[in-house]
Amino acid sequence: MGNLLKGKKGIIFGALNEQSIAWKVAERAVEEGAEIVLTNAPAALRFGSINELAEKCNTIVVPADATKVEDLEALVDKAMEHFGGKFDFILHSIGMSPNLRKGLTYENLNYEYLNKTLDISAVSFHKVIKVAYEKDALNEWGSIVALTYLAAQRTVCGYDDMADAKALLESIARSFGYVYGRERKVRINTVSQSPTLTTAGSGVSGLSKLLDYAEAMSPLGNGTAEECADYVLTLFSDYTRKITMQNLYHDGGFSSMSMSHNAMYLIEKGLETEK
Amino acid sequence: MGNLLKGKKGIIFGALNEQSIAWKVAERAVEEGAEIVLTNAPAALRFGSINELAEKCNTIVVPADATKVEDLEALVDKAMEHFGGKFDFILHSIGMSPNLRKGLTYENLNYEYLNKTLDISAVSFHKVIKVAYEKDALNEWGSIVALTYLAAQRTVCGYDDMADAKALLESIARSFGYVYGRERKVRINTVSQSPTLTTAGSGVSGLSKLLDYAEAMSPLGNGTAEECADYVLTLFSDYTRKITMQNLYHDGGFSSMSMSHNAMYLIEKGLETEK
Amino acid sequence: MGNLLKGKKGIIFGALNEQSIAWKVAERAVEEGAEIVLTNAPAALRFGSINELAEKCNTIVVPADATKVEDLEALVDKAMEHFGGKFDFILHSIGMSPNLRKGLTYENLNYEYLNKTLDISAVSFHKVIKVAYEKDALNEWGSIVALTYLAAQRTVCGYDDMADAKALLESIARSFGYVYGRERKVRINTVSQSPTLTTAGSGVSGLSKLLDYAEAMSPLGNGTAEECADYVLTLFSDYTRKITMQNLYHDGGFSSMSMSHNAMYLIEKGLETEK
Amino acid sequence: MGNLLKGKKGIIFGALNEQSIAWKVAERAVEEGAEIVLTNAPAALRFGSINELAEKCNTIVVPADATKVEDLEALVDKAMEHFGGKFDFILHSIGMSPNLRKGLTYENLNYEYLNKTLDISAVSFHKVIKVAYEKDALNEWGSIVALTYLAAQRTVCGYDDMADAKALLESIARSFGYVYGRERKVRINTVSQSPTLTTAGSGVSGLSKLLDYAEAMSPLGNGTAEECADYVLTLFSDYTRKITMQNLYHDGGFSSMSMSHNAMYLIEKGLETEK
Repeated sequence: MGNLLKGKKGIIFGALNEQSIAWKVAERAVEEGAEIVLTNAPAALRFGSINELAEKCNTIVVPADATKVEDLEALVDKAMEHFGGKFDFILHSIGMSPNLRKGLTYENLNYEYLNKTLDISAVSFHKVIKVAYEKDALNEWGSIVALTYLAAQRTVCGYDDMADAKALLESIARSFGYVYGRERKVRINTVSQSPTLTTAGSGVSGLSKLLDYAEAMSPLGNGTAEECADYVLTLFSDYTRKITMQNLYHDGGFSSMSMSHNAMYLIEKGLETEK
Repeated sequence: MGNLLKGKKGIIFGALNEQSIAWKVAERAVEEGAEIVLTNAPAALRFGSINELAEKCNTIVVPADATKVEDLEALVDKAMEHFGGKFDFILHSIGMSPNLRKGLTYENLNYEYLNKTLDISAVSFHKVIKVAYEKDALNEWGSIVALTYLAAQRTVCGYDDMADAKALLESIARSFGYVYGRERKVRINTVSQSPTLTTAGSGVSGLSKLLDYAEAMSPLGNGTAEECADYVLTLFSDYTRKITMQNLYHDGGFSSMSMSHNAMYLIEKGLETEK
Repeated sequence: MGNLLKGKKGIIFGALNEQSIAWKVAERAVEEGAEIVLTNAPAALRFGSINELAEKCNTIVVPADATKVEDLEALVDKAMEHFGGKFDFILHSIGMSPNLRKGLTYENLNYEYLNKTLDISAVSFHKVIKVAYEKDALNEWGSIVALTYLAAQRTVCGYDDMADAKALLESIARSFGYVYGRERKVRINTVSQSPTLTTAGSGVSGLSKLLDYAEAMSPLGNGTAEECADYVLTLFSDYTRKITMQNLYHDGGFSSMSMSHNAMYLIEKGLETEK
Repeated sequence: MGNLLKGKKGIIFGALNEQSIAWKVAERAVEEGAEIVLTNAPAALRFGSINELAEKCNTIVVPADATKVEDLEALVDKAMEHFGGKFDFILHSIGMSPNLRKGLTYENLNYEYLNKTLDISAVSFHKVIKVAYEKDALNEWGSIVALTYLAAQRTVCGYDDMADAKALLESIARSFGYVYGRERKVRINTVSQSPTLTTAGSGVSGLSKLLDYAEAMSPLGNGTAEECADYVLTLFSDYTRKITMQNLYHDGGFSSMSMSHNAMYLIEKGLETEK
């Protein structure tokens, strides 16, 4: 590995701490020759250790609330100033559900909270893209990626309104992917990643069991945060110029499985206990 | 035809005028033996001719803004009073985008308007279901259907943020379909209908061309509003009790086509003109 | 229930014994007013009890090997003679894998056997349709249905080369659905049914565990053979005229689930046993 | 670009001439540091110019009929001898339909020919993988890719029984992907490429019109053979280790489009001509 992203520049949203997939993307992008600018919500900046990452990546951190267009405009301006012009890629790795946090199950959603879930986890993606588009901030053949999860297609108990937010996010990728592709040759895709032990993921109840189950079901095992980062890099690179409006599963095969030998074994044991 | 819904009772949202699919569902449901209650937003009631339909269907109209939980609660209470107890089905046929109406294209969305699009066209579905669920208003093996459109999966230029709203709507059907199915044996599905010349559809620019194209592409031609109504009735009936969390295409085959002989002919003619 | 198929006539392939889904379709179709002709492979006729069903349904049994065009031609001729003209529907419920029977796992497939699996379980569907098409045996708005299984999209360990056969079958439904729809307004669909305890299904190793698991995962529980039959009837009826080239899941919601509360419980128990 | 495949070794099937996607993959793989072995059917070798490519890539050509297990065994032995041991990737770019060649439309398929279409275009993929698996010829984290086309999911008039062959091919990728992934950590995927002007593609009637239409529909335009090759390289690389059992669209966004502004313009012109 070495120069996959040589000469490329991009903004990375959502690196909170070392567990974050965005953190791994940042590290790996720089190792592969990219220059990056880091950003996260002001609140997240206080809890995380992003400055450590910025030092390692020899770059700046620009606080921005991704639900606020004015913050995003300032961020893009700052990034263009930092890069000395247009840039090439954006990673959106943002998701939060107040309903999930407060333990309000799907049949008990609070609609103010749902609005926030959608705004933070999905509409923010439209805002990020719109601001980049309006400022014509991305070079031709630029690439935008958002992280998502299979629950957008198939229900996962306990994932709550985040499933709906991810479905909306993936739709935004398609809808804006059409416009941005047609007008400026920029591609937009989502990467649907295995369940991952990040700070964001840990809000989902029973995540560790879900991880064990997905591990048993996936022929190659779960994708790790590091492996996901590597995959995202290919989507930022010049090797994938005609891939757009796609939802791409990085999950060790889970999404194409209905029943594996290993999962069957677990279930068999579980069924025996029941008797 | 005759007694497909004999003894069934249900609420139908969104019958504006004779062109409305909901109107056809109401008429046909009654012909097949069902009792219904009609509802629409107060504003829509003024423009439409729903009272005519109510007379024909020998029922009442209960005004309700589907974005307001209290309106929905009053509606469900009224319906249960009218029916003398629980009922069996709900049709959600509600969609509106202020962005589309005002001609704001996808890269120029107004976020206040987007919020309204999502609230009216998708979140209202969650509210309707939640109110029915909390009041335990549906009989076991009840059935809930919402109308949707292929743009939720594949981008249609000019359909604007309604594509995202429909993606969200379909996700809500799955997410709540899991809960309602598990707890009360109620099924929830969406029907993805051909483009149709309704008052709602006429807001989409170039709809008539889209209709002609879909007609040429679909081996059976576009599904009409009447045919769509018949299909919805099967989903309300006892013949489809184990169908849930599905998005079902009623489109003459369009969704499974990439290129038909007839569409190719049109395109060929179009290409020749270009030269 | 009563007259859903009043005046309709059709051929039903694959009723072996009372467990067969085709058996249930035959019974229910007749109850709903249809006339039918039964058929199965000569070998299957010896093992099963189809004559009992024929008596009950007041009809004839025409032996036909669905891999032989001449047998199918004789069958269709006989059926048209019996019905006094054209008919309206066909059910294809045929599947057999010599590899599965002989315990040859997927990495050890015998290619002669694979050829047979594909020929019996999938290409036979093309032959059935082609013969009907060439003889112009179906009325306008006729309906053809084949039974399939989710393994066509998502791998189920132990289902062997039947997964590939079902994928081929579903593709044939689309490909011929386009032609038959365009030329004669006949629709072709596949119904993807829950795992079911039939004689055919019992060849899949671990089927009963698979059933228990699917039951735990599906919010409405598995679809039974009877319920599947009812669903198939709606597709033969005039209520679904514009549904074609679709693969329709009759599975209690399984296909839209990734993890349910009940399945999670089983897996948790299984995981505990492991420790 | 430079060292994406440094140290990797692989077999490439199906490079006929400079138009072939496999040809481009071979060239680009070598440019990125890979060693390759070329193979094609004896008949294809006579018509094509593969020796030229072999010289350029500094490698050998091993004739092999991919429908014959013994040929494939000899090929894999030869390749392992050439490489001095195991290797890392395989490209399957093989497809041929005698029905299509002889102008037999889908309702007129010859079943001997259909059998050949399936054997050459799909079952050959199982044979290639099985031989590699039995000889344990691939290193851990090896990667196998087959080329496919959207007609496997959505009917394209004129593509004939190749649509069914591609559906079967994609199913084989999933079925064997599960086994090979579980047992040896080898991934298997299919790349669904834009219509492309290759010698194989030119058999499809009206291909140039299909190309123009797809170009108008795809926001980024059609993927070229060169671009497809680049994408395939990412799937052979170590950046995509957890991607398996997927069908990946390399098509400029076509698969996620229902109607674009440009395609609508063509159709509008075509419709006007009709009047």
